[in-house]
Amino acid sequence: MRLHTILSPQLFPLFSDDVLGKQVLIIDILRATTSVVVMLDNGAISVQPVSGVGEAMELKRENPNLLIAGERNGYKVEGFDFGNSPQEFTPDRVSGASLVITTTNGTQALSLSLEASHIWVGGFLNINALVEAMAAVGEDVFLFCAGWKGHVNLEDTLFAGAVAKALTSKGAEITDDATRAAIVLWEQAKYDVHSFLSVASHVKRFQSMHAESDLEACLRMNTSEKAIIYQNGVLVAIPS
Amino acid sequence: MRLHTILSPQLFPLFSDDVLGKQVLIIDILRATTSVVVMLDNGAISVQPVSGVGEAMELKRENPNLLIAGERNGYKVEGFDFGNSPQEFTPDRVSGASLVITTTNGTQALSLSLEASHIWVGGFLNINALVEAMAAVGEDVFLFCAGWKGHVNLEDTLFAGAVAKALTSKGAEITDDATRAAIVLWEQAKYDVHSFLSVASHVKRFQSMHAESDLEACLRMNTSEKAIIYQNGVLVAIPS
Repeated sequence: MRLHTILSPQLFPLFSDDVLGKQVLIIDILRATTSVVVMLDNGAISVQPVSGVGEAMELKRENPNLLIAGERNGYKVEGFDFGNSPQEFTPDRVSGASLVITTTNGTQALSLSLEASHIWVGGFLNINALVEAMAAVGEDVFLFCAGWKGHVNLEDTLFAGAVAKALTSKGAEITDDATRAAIVLWEQAKYDVHSFLSVASHVKRFQSMHAESDLEACLRMNTSEKAIIYQNGVLVAIPS
Repeated sequence: MRLHTILSPQLFPLFSDDVLGKQVLIIDILRATTSVVVMLDNGAISVQPVSGVGEAMELKRENPNLLIAGERNGYKVEGFDFGNSPQEFTPDRVSGASLVITTTNGTQALSLSLEASHIWVGGFLNINALVEAMAAVGEDVFLFCAGWKGHVNLEDTLFAGAVAKALTSKGAEITDDATRAAIVLWEQAKYDVHSFLSVASHVKRFQSMHAESDLEACLRMNTSEKAIIYQNGVLVAIPS
């Protein structure tokens, strides 16, 4: 099991021939992939990621029972049921529901990864479940940071480092400098991720727009024991 | 003076509108930009960077006094006067000479940066001179890591972190997470850069092909007091 880290979608072309038949983990800590974990952990049946706002609206017109969630540039989209705060997806609102999510960065990374045999999604909330699930499959892993408008960001890179570190303890092999750098950053940050990230560009942008509790909600570790996988066009929890 | 770090040429499109009229530092520690420092420090008049082997050969045919240097995939090009080892460019061979250099990664990064007002080149060998020169200009700085075939590498990233750290002590402002990550890596590595890099992909590749002394030659600090700048198509030393 070899590990690669893709620090931004802008770097994906270097890897596009390599992900065929391998595992990809999509990382968008603030907040898309974190929110998907909360949705499915709180009882949603499935979450369909789409790239465009129009596509989400169209799906809702065809099936009014769908709940649609998403942000553009960090703000809830007009006419959607939810924005993209993990705190919105409470059990009373999502249990038994089918959701659609559209985000700026995460959906783009996912759409690039469709040749992979396994596309995993998650964050700090379900890191152990993800690591166990990927190790059980055993195929090479590409840690794909969604970044921010193509730019590398610290929170996704840190999480890639945390996952890489955990997978190496299960025998995975580091193959590139991006993974090495991510692990060094994680080793520096792990005792106080919140403080470490307080200087990060996106985190500062985020804090100016959202409640501090939202950031904390994205950095909690292992509140969920479910891995999330993309199958037949939707994200579902394993075990369901 | 705002600082940005471009971790690979693959990420350059995100910055291409921004470098106009600003300062760019081209970083290709193993070994192109390091070798250029040695050439000019040992008395070469100028170094002309070109992207292709054919172009270098053509220049030499037109002017047989030119000395041509370069590597492709880490090896000296057939028919060239030099490869790309900083140890080749001794004063007896380069003093008073005009050189041409072609490299895999460094020249590509330079050719992308032509809109900048100042294009600087260098490495650990002339880090203080570069920092002083860029601070004296005072314009925003883009630290442009040449990387390895588009991939992020540790040695260029570390050097970007070292320069960024030094410039912040002269009042420069960090603007992005790539710069923050590079500084954290540099802070970890600075007491023993050689050991820190011994796990890096390109360094391992490098060590399998070249003398250990070549790596050491690329990691020495401040053996040169000259900054290097690209002017009228050639790299020259300041002060000359």
